[in-house]
Amino acid sequence: MDEVEFVSGETRIYAIVGHPIEQVRSPEMVTAELVKRGHNAILIPIDVLPVDFERTVGGLTRVQNLDGLIFTIPFKQRACALADELGRQARTVGAINAMGRDRNGKWFGDIFDGIGCLEAFRNHNLQFKNQRVMLIGAGGAGRAIGVAVAYEGPVAITIYDIDERRAAQLAETVATIDPKIRLSVRTPVVENIDILLNASPVGMLSDPRAPIDPPQIPSDVVVFDAIVKPEITKLLAIAQQSGCRTIFGREMMRGQIAKIVDYFEAPQAGARRSTDAH
Amino acid sequence: MDEVEFVSGETRIYAIVGHPIEQVRSPEMVTAELVKRGHNAILIPIDVLPVDFERTVGGLTRVQNLDGLIFTIPFKQRACALADELGRQARTVGAINAMGRDRNGKWFGDIFDGIGCLEAFRNHNLQFKNQRVMLIGAGGAGRAIGVAVAYEGPVAITIYDIDERRAAQLAETVATIDPKIRLSVRTPVVENIDILLNASPVGMLSDPRAPIDPPQIPSDVVVFDAIVKPEITKLLAIAQQSGCRTIFGREMMRGQIAKIVDYFEAPQAGARRSTDAH
Repeated sequence: MDEVEFVSGETRIYAIVGHPIEQVRSPEMVTAELVKRGHNAILIPIDVLPVDFERTVGGLTRVQNLDGLIFTIPFKQRACALADELGRQARTVGAINAMGRDRNGKWFGDIFDGIGCLEAFRNHNLQFKNQRVMLIGAGGAGRAIGVAVAYEGPVAITIYDIDERRAAQLAETVATIDPKIRLSVRTPVVENIDILLNASPVGMLSDPRAPIDPPQIPSDVVVFDAIVKPEITKLLAIAQQSGCRTIFGREMMRGQIAKIVDYFEAPQAGARRSTDAH
Repeated sequence: MDEVEFVSGETRIYAIVGHPIEQVRSPEMVTAELVKRGHNAILIPIDVLPVDFERTVGGLTRVQNLDGLIFTIPFKQRACALADELGRQARTVGAINAMGRDRNGKWFGDIFDGIGCLEAFRNHNLQFKNQRVMLIGAGGAGRAIGVAVAYEGPVAITIYDIDERRAAQLAETVATIDPKIRLSVRTPVVENIDILLNASPVGMLSDPRAPIDPPQIPSDVVVFDAIVKPEITKLLAIAQQSGCRTIFGREMMRGQIAKIVDYFEAPQAGARRSTDAH
């Protein structure tokens, strides 16, 4: 009898919840990581209309063989209410993108966008401690990255967002995390910084622009772009031509997936490890 | 980057809902049938506590990329209430084991245990029309098989169940389907019948017994056993030694899977095709 080998009655289920859902990459990538670690597990896409979110996902949290959830647009904020306990970064950001259940059935939620960015830097043996950071974009990803970076002890963070109110809000949040950080909200600069982070959507897909367009970036600046597609954005191309070290959106994604699967394996320990211990 | 190929954001989801769930075979087998037919689809196991059933499965029916559900023990009766429309056999049996959603979001429910049995006979070019049938077992599977057979125009059905009330209830139901069928409720016989059906659990797994234990079965009787494991039950072994034609539980399972996937592909047409058109 014909049978597939990648799913059985014993398979543990994980899901990514969003609307729309067709474009997400977590099913292929998180499933690969789970399988690589020896789990009989799969991460499936779940497309939920906003009007059905609480009811449907509340029901999913009661499924006995479902051990973890990832949240994407537009549910990262609303998902907070489904967790029994939130990690420190999730509380600060006001959003989660992953929830894991411990053996007692308790659901832990946390946000890994920023943690994925830190992880990408760590894999290059780079850190944010004592660095001067320019962050472009204070939306969902920018806010998560800004908060994660703030916990790392940088000396300065400059924030730019096309929506000035959003940039100011993130600056306020960062100030509550670590009052020693020198903060400014202004148009992007490439001088007198150590790290340039793009978390804005400018440069995504067929957008040929860079979020900042200097002829040259000082070659000692590390340049990161959260955008996954294309791999080499206009900003990263400028950085490469300037001789800068570059870090790609895919590295953040890979770092985030590893950290989320750690979290799924041990949500309580994972929450402490990823957000409280520095 | 490591990625698996069997699931993506575009994968359509199906699920089997039961408690417990580890032992079910639908994930491997239905997924194989879906993939064989060219669908980017997967059937996953969903373990739901009875107390959570309506809430959780009600939520699942609102998932936009979930197109079908299979129900197993102990939910086949309660699942009826989740369907917007029930097929004829489901209404008669009072249970469903599959639900499919049409393009307008309407959920159709029907029961395929009996239809799977008919399909197994059809694949042997055998029919129930004008046949004398002995049915052992009037529980969940027996009731579904008895109802499906009754719609096929047999001349006689004899029903045995260790619980006499249950046998009598099924006889009553069969009488409402086709008053021309000669009915009796009594201990099993192998004489003066054309088809012997076992839908009782006697003979399952390590149970060495047969539900009826004659030294010999007349060789012109067709013998079917709904049990899947072992493949050759004690009853089928006796039948083979007697020179009878035999039909296996796996053939019913295969028939049922094909019919359920037909139904998932076109629930409204499927409901008509499988239960109303004879």
